[in-house]
Amino acid sequence: MEKISLGEYDIFVGDIWEPLNDLLVEFNYSKIVVLIDENTRHHCLSALLSNTDIENLKLIEITSGEVHKSIETCNVIWKQMIVKQLDRNALVINLGGGVIGDMGGFCASTFKRGMDFIQIPTTLLSQVDSSIGGKLGIDFGDVKNSIGLFKNPKAVFIYPGFLKTLPAAEIQSGFAEMIKHGLIADTEIWEELKMINDFENVNWTSLIIPSLKIKKRIVEADPFEKNVRKKLNFGHTIGHAVESLALQSKQPLLHGEAIAVGMVCEAWLSVKNSNLSESVLDEISEYIVKKYGKVSLKESAFSNLIDLMKNDKKNEGAAINFTLLSQPGKASINHTCDEKMIAESLRYYIQL
Amino acid sequence: MEKISLGEYDIFVGDIWEPLNDLLVEFNYSKIVVLIDENTRHHCLSALLSNTDIENLKLIEITSGEVHKSIETCNVIWKQMIVKQLDRNALVINLGGGVIGDMGGFCASTFKRGMDFIQIPTTLLSQVDSSIGGKLGIDFGDVKNSIGLFKNPKAVFIYPGFLKTLPAAEIQSGFAEMIKHGLIADTEIWEELKMINDFENVNWTSLIIPSLKIKKRIVEADPFEKNVRKKLNFGHTIGHAVESLALQSKQPLLHGEAIAVGMVCEAWLSVKNSNLSESVLDEISEYIVKKYGKVSLKESAFSNLIDLMKNDKKNEGAAINFTLLSQPGKASINHTCDEKMIAESLRYYIQL
Repeated sequence: MEKISLGEYDIFVGDIWEPLNDLLVEFNYSKIVVLIDENTRHHCLSALLSNTDIENLKLIEITSGEVHKSIETCNVIWKQMIVKQLDRNALVINLGGGVIGDMGGFCASTFKRGMDFIQIPTTLLSQVDSSIGGKLGIDFGDVKNSIGLFKNPKAVFIYPGFLKTLPAAEIQSGFAEMIKHGLIADTEIWEELKMINDFENVNWTSLIIPSLKIKKRIVEADPFEKNVRKKLNFGHTIGHAVESLALQSKQPLLHGEAIAVGMVCEAWLSVKNSNLSESVLDEISEYIVKKYGKVSLKESAFSNLIDLMKNDKKNEGAAINFTLLSQPGKASINHTCDEKMIAESLRYYIQL
Repeated sequence: MEKISLGEYDIFVGDIWEPLNDLLVEFNYSKIVVLIDENTRHHCLSALLSNTDIENLKLIEITSGEVHKSIETCNVIWKQMIVKQLDRNALVINLGGGVIGDMGGFCASTFKRGMDFIQIPTTLLSQVDSSIGGKLGIDFGDVKNSIGLFKNPKAVFIYPGFLKTLPAAEIQSGFAEMIKHGLIADTEIWEELKMINDFENVNWTSLIIPSLKIKKRIVEADPFEKNVRKKLNFGHTIGHAVESLALQSKQPLLHGEAIAVGMVCEAWLSVKNSNLSESVLDEISEYIVKKYGKVSLKESAFSNLIDLMKNDKKNEGAAINFTLLSQPGKASINHTCDEKMIAESLRYYIQL
């Protein structure tokens, strides 16, 4: 079991049950509610229940999926919190992926002006990325994560054992953020991840820890995303727009699948704007298309996509803001690209 | 013009326009949006526009009234923020009473994970109470202020000139919180306020400043209401329940009108639980009934009222939490009273 401290809270990776039980004893919460969806009820809840000693535990269940990361679902959660008469000394345990963690954390932080919550991320994506760093929120008005706040959990407990229960596509989705961590901050990690062909035989704990440490370093340096934390947004300006558009269609994409598209386009922009070499662009594009396939993007959707980018939280004023690469392992923030160039980068992806 | 500093922000009382303009110049916001309702559009907006130099100001207008301090109205505000393409460097100016301030601050603090906002309270209630202390939020599921958070504004600008535009009932409502400040912390203020018969000839600036200073002292000592800040809740456990119930009926009460009822009932509880003398109870009851009249409460509504009290944020576990008086100017926190006694206190009010 590894403990990584991030400012005011700890992240536990591995056999999490002892520190989790210790925390529950230490804080003696008035009530404990576990937020789950149908997947984590089936695959993860029994491990939590059998390894912890929680009296009078209560459950709130929501439907899985990014489309439910909405104010409507918050209304359901808040209502349940009232029905269950939670007070400010109660605890919410978010047992699930990014949707549960982001939305459950947001609901806990705003219920009666703030209760404690802990994150037990159950997907690869949430284990390496969304569960740490204090970003909470929901999608609103077709804009990803447009409503939310920064608030740290009481602790994060990462149990790689949960990954065995995930569909391959979910592993793939989380893997995209690990690739991103390598590309923006550590070329050795990028080289190592590139070599992995078979997800079956991976020692996840040994891969998750270095990936988490990259995120930890960046978040600690800039918790509220004033500057260097924007490095984590590589692939996300275009990726979020692609994800938002797909969310409105009948074929939503997983977050990492959309970010994979975004990383290719933004690597192309990096060649034009921050001296990334053509050969590295080729390498990234080839790898991502091989691993993730091609997402169908239509030229007719470009203006929609660009409108979505204009509402990205990272922008200042009218310009669309990007994090770009100068080489593998090295990212720089606050590049702006005009709409014509963004359209070009989308065209580059289409012709691959 | 008086400046009162409260931790990380300042409260300006009097002729506010110069420090307001200074702040706008200093922070050079990308966009400025003013949140108004139909009352502040009519009575307050022109003073703001003619005394400040804001280019390209945008407006978001909502309907006035506590019944609109809801998640539905937040949805309208957030949508407008997206339509107006606000970024994180934009500013929201909340020009209005407690509803505008609490809800506008909540929407600003959660839009794109947090924008700056300033409070320009226009009612007596918001000038002496709700605009300072960082409590933001909305009513939800019939529970007052059940969704929200603590976040400080960039500054508060209190212009007593706005009070001239208020209906008498609104002045009366705010006055209840000033009475409360006296009762919990300063018997001289209570004695002074008791003498005021005619609101027409009051020098509001000279009354607002000492009242604000009481709140400032208490909030500074305990910003997140862990202990002494609970003193400000005198009258509010029962008052909030009375207000919530009235909100569901066809005859909603103003906040201060409900708090006035709460202060009488909780003064009665103070006699039973914290040694308040019967003569002070008589004095408080007589004054409040004379000033505020009697609100119609029915014995058949007691169980509803008590259920609402059980969901009060101030509770820990099942017990209902009260702030009580031991004498005028002296309050103590964390008293619990059982349901029978609470019903008795409501009966006392009815028979007055």
